[in-house]
Amino acid sequence: MCRWMAYYGDPMLVEHLLFRPTHSLIDQSLHSTMGATTANGDGFGIGWYGEGPEPAVFKNVDPAWHDQNLREIARQIRTPLFFAHVRASTGSAVERSNCHPFRWHQWLWMHNGAITGFHQIKRDLLLRVDPVLFGDIEGSTDSELLFYLALTHGLAEQPVVAVEQAVGVVERIAADHGIANPVQMTVATSNGESIWVFRYSSQHQSRTLFYSTAADRLRELYPDIEVIANAGPETRLVVSEPLRDLPGAWNEVPESSVGVIRAGRDELLPFRPAL
Amino acid sequence: MCRWMAYYGDPMLVEHLLFRPTHSLIDQSLHSTMGATTANGDGFGIGWYGEGPEPAVFKNVDPAWHDQNLREIARQIRTPLFFAHVRASTGSAVERSNCHPFRWHQWLWMHNGAITGFHQIKRDLLLRVDPVLFGDIEGSTDSELLFYLALTHGLAEQPVVAVEQAVGVVERIAADHGIANPVQMTVATSNGESIWVFRYSSQHQSRTLFYSTAADRLRELYPDIEVIANAGPETRLVVSEPLRDLPGAWNEVPESSVGVIRAGRDELLPFRPAL
Amino acid sequence: MCRWMAYYGDPMLVEHLLFRPTHSLIDQSLHSTMGATTANGDGFGIGWYGEGPEPAVFKNVDPAWHDQNLREIARQIRTPLFFAHVRASTGSAVERSNCHPFRWHQWLWMHNGAITGFHQIKRDLLLRVDPVLFGDIEGSTDSELLFYLALTHGLAEQPVVAVEQAVGVVERIAADHGIANPVQMTVATSNGESIWVFRYSSQHQSRTLFYSTAADRLRELYPDIEVIANAGPETRLVVSEPLRDLPGAWNEVPESSVGVIRAGRDELLPFRPAL
Amino acid sequence: MCRWMAYYGDPMLVEHLLFRPTHSLIDQSLHSTMGATTANGDGFGIGWYGEGPEPAVFKNVDPAWHDQNLREIARQIRTPLFFAHVRASTGSAVERSNCHPFRWHQWLWMHNGAITGFHQIKRDLLLRVDPVLFGDIEGSTDSELLFYLALTHGLAEQPVVAVEQAVGVVERIAADHGIANPVQMTVATSNGESIWVFRYSSQHQSRTLFYSTAADRLRELYPDIEVIANAGPETRLVVSEPLRDLPGAWNEVPESSVGVIRAGRDELLPFRPAL
Repeated sequence: MCRWMAYYGDPMLVEHLLFRPTHSLIDQSLHSTMGATTANGDGFGIGWYGEGPEPAVFKNVDPAWHDQNLREIARQIRTPLFFAHVRASTGSAVERSNCHPFRWHQWLWMHNGAITGFHQIKRDLLLRVDPVLFGDIEGSTDSELLFYLALTHGLAEQPVVAVEQAVGVVERIAADHGIANPVQMTVATSNGESIWVFRYSSQHQSRTLFYSTAADRLRELYPDIEVIANAGPETRLVVSEPLRDLPGAWNEVPESSVGVIRAGRDELLPFRPAL
Repeated sequence: MCRWMAYYGDPMLVEHLLFRPTHSLIDQSLHSTMGATTANGDGFGIGWYGEGPEPAVFKNVDPAWHDQNLREIARQIRTPLFFAHVRASTGSAVERSNCHPFRWHQWLWMHNGAITGFHQIKRDLLLRVDPVLFGDIEGSTDSELLFYLALTHGLAEQPVVAVEQAVGVVERIAADHGIANPVQMTVATSNGESIWVFRYSSQHQSRTLFYSTAADRLRELYPDIEVIANAGPETRLVVSEPLRDLPGAWNEVPESSVGVIRAGRDELLPFRPAL
Repeated sequence: MCRWMAYYGDPMLVEHLLFRPTHSLIDQSLHSTMGATTANGDGFGIGWYGEGPEPAVFKNVDPAWHDQNLREIARQIRTPLFFAHVRASTGSAVERSNCHPFRWHQWLWMHNGAITGFHQIKRDLLLRVDPVLFGDIEGSTDSELLFYLALTHGLAEQPVVAVEQAVGVVERIAADHGIANPVQMTVATSNGESIWVFRYSSQHQSRTLFYSTAADRLRELYPDIEVIANAGPETRLVVSEPLRDLPGAWNEVPESSVGVIRAGRDELLPFRPAL
Repeated sequence: MCRWMAYYGDPMLVEHLLFRPTHSLIDQSLHSTMGATTANGDGFGIGWYGEGPEPAVFKNVDPAWHDQNLREIARQIRTPLFFAHVRASTGSAVERSNCHPFRWHQWLWMHNGAITGFHQIKRDLLLRVDPVLFGDIEGSTDSELLFYLALTHGLAEQPVVAVEQAVGVVERIAADHGIANPVQMTVATSNGESIWVFRYSSQHQSRTLFYSTAADRLRELYPDIEVIANAGPETRLVVSEPLRDLPGAWNEVPESSVGVIRAGRDELLPFRPAL
């Protein structure tokens, strides 16, 4: 399995997001406490929106905790929309093209979880990808293929519906192969303006996912914590595991739901795969 | 493009094959003289038959010339059947799964060349791979896909016919997409007992390929060269570029032909893609 | 910290030593149970005696658990004397030259532990290395420097005395700098004929180290375990953590002692740094 | 040998400096035309001043031409002072800590060339490094050691004199060992405000080095080249090889000289190692 985090808010130095918190994602790469595996050392990636409309990605196959270049980059990049992911492979090769986040034009996508029986149904799933998009697939993971199924179903136009349809495709094809409960996922995706986060599993026993309490409420709770005192009103974090142990700061994303983060009002909606 | 070599003969230390010759494959990785590119620094691989029926592969994404582990391994492995390949990417990612030789059970496969317009026809080619084999594809190169097309057409039973059919598939699908002269290839494949080497291109302007003169004849020509004096009677090398400048030692594999190397009598046959 | 294992006995396929046991060193690289750290993912190395008088080393900076080439090599190498090490950096860079085992001519050396205050005393320690040997130092670790201090004091002629003197040098120089209890070490070294294993720390609270029970006694205890039934009479393993949970199979190397493993009679001696 | 470039001017996107020119440094990494070696594929590095007083470095051991992360970073970093280096090892290991530029607090340093007989005199040179600085040395190259000798002699206070003294130390110690003509170097160093570039070799046959013509003169020469039309008045490039073939745009740095680039007036001075 894996661990990820997504940030939305005022432009922030990546170092503050990635290295400073007590139980930062880098710390989780070495010893996750809530994940299916302790070490998430099979590569990592960060994605962010900065210069130009397309996001940048910096990904590598070594463990995040010992990557010197990641520390260098983190001290130089300021961004209002940031994704980070540490990977524990569930079978696919440890290669850069299999590291998250994945990018397609202005979209980013990252995933924690797995498609059960992926080896068996991979070909059928690939056939469901729009032939126009097919050639852009770079790696061999279930996670990236789920991204391309979502793109095929219109991620760019109607993100929630597209992911519901993509997951529906996986569940139907898995069922055809006699595979029960194929989907386990927490997913984040963005177009640079909004972030959509999904928590879902076929068996309704999904991996953990938390979102941060609104910034003004956090400031009331923790007026003396500098990073909170300085956080802008739109600041929002979504994480596989809380970055610090602060009562009232973290809220579980409910089972089978999707959150939409954007300027103004966020939303939390039910998530139902399309049958 | 790339450079490769294949060895058949008495068990030989890899170091003698890979590092000792004046213009060894390692030297060719830094400055090829007959290839389409000077440097072949986008990964390398070796494959050999040793313990067990399946060959081993050692592959990496860094340039062969500075890989310290390759030097270590080369001093420890003795093998009667050895493949080596240095890569210059024609577009596919520089990742271990894209390094040659590729392996499927007891088979090895390596390729120098490219399929023109591969990005356009990749999906159609993938659909022609036997669904049973499909899940074993690991990387994203044209070279590996050609291997799986050959496996689909019975490489294990009738290697020459299978490759003729696989190349025929590529040429027909390329023609359907209006792509002229899609295939450029020198290929070596083996099951651990024989080696088949192919030199072919749609335009009949194939990359260079040479095979060594029979060992007894070589000994007459060069009685004072130790490695030749010691070579067993079955010794045979096939190379993209000659390893030394020795008149009479190297013979061009003819355009559009396939060579079969095995214990006893070798063969040289015409190669005709199946229409 | 780190984990290591050393094997002495009949030529054995590395795969059987490195991957097959329940709690193999590869498993320990992901979740060590007795070590100071859970994950040992900052590089790994193996060293073995095979072709030629000098041992070979295969080392890499990625985690042992996801290195594909290590699996390939392990299935091809048979050796009567084998070292393996998984690293958790205590500060030195994660680079191949800092991976264990280290080699000097026919000698191998690997270490679990650390020299406290190394940054402060590194220069003084380097000055104590024989100038003739100085240029052969490749990396920047305390572990390799301890090796060169032992070589300086005659490791090749009188291994136990040389290590006692090298450790004495470290303790005296540390004391000069006001550093208490500088040495924490379990070390294995070999010349290809014998293995010396050391367990020592200035504070007499050394990392764990175990040696296997004699092969004939093990066969009486576990007649049904195939690998034990097939083990030759000289088989001996020394490990940071037991590879399986087998009562009677593993014996703690006593605090402040050195074991000598060789054909015929092994020895277990007290270890006293030279003052 | 190696190739490098240094940029001073208005904040510029790294991509424009590193990838866009016809014969960019990335192109030179694959086929240098004026260097001692064709391929410079033994690692690379970039250094730049951005957030905070200390420069950032991004360095890796693979060839610059196939590093995907380098392309990503280059599209996101804008900087007024930029160093880039592609390496062809002259013997030292291909490891990140041996990649240029080297950093010490706010200083950057990069080098093309070599110290002849370095293996023999390395220990004596190390002893000449200020013990306070000694522990900060990370790698094993002659280039980094020369940097620390310059720091020892006051690089931060009087850069030109410090490098003259450092080179003098190398020449004297080499002479003591009977090594003739030990120094071959083009060096760039910076504190974030000025850049000093040195061209020197003991034998007065130094590697090539060029600086760009002043921006206002360039605009007169090439009014139609966009990048020149847009260049600010302080724009200056120093390169191992010209990035484009533009008559009048590039000027050779004279043998045995040092150039100082800073806001306002640049300087070109003779360089004389201190005896």
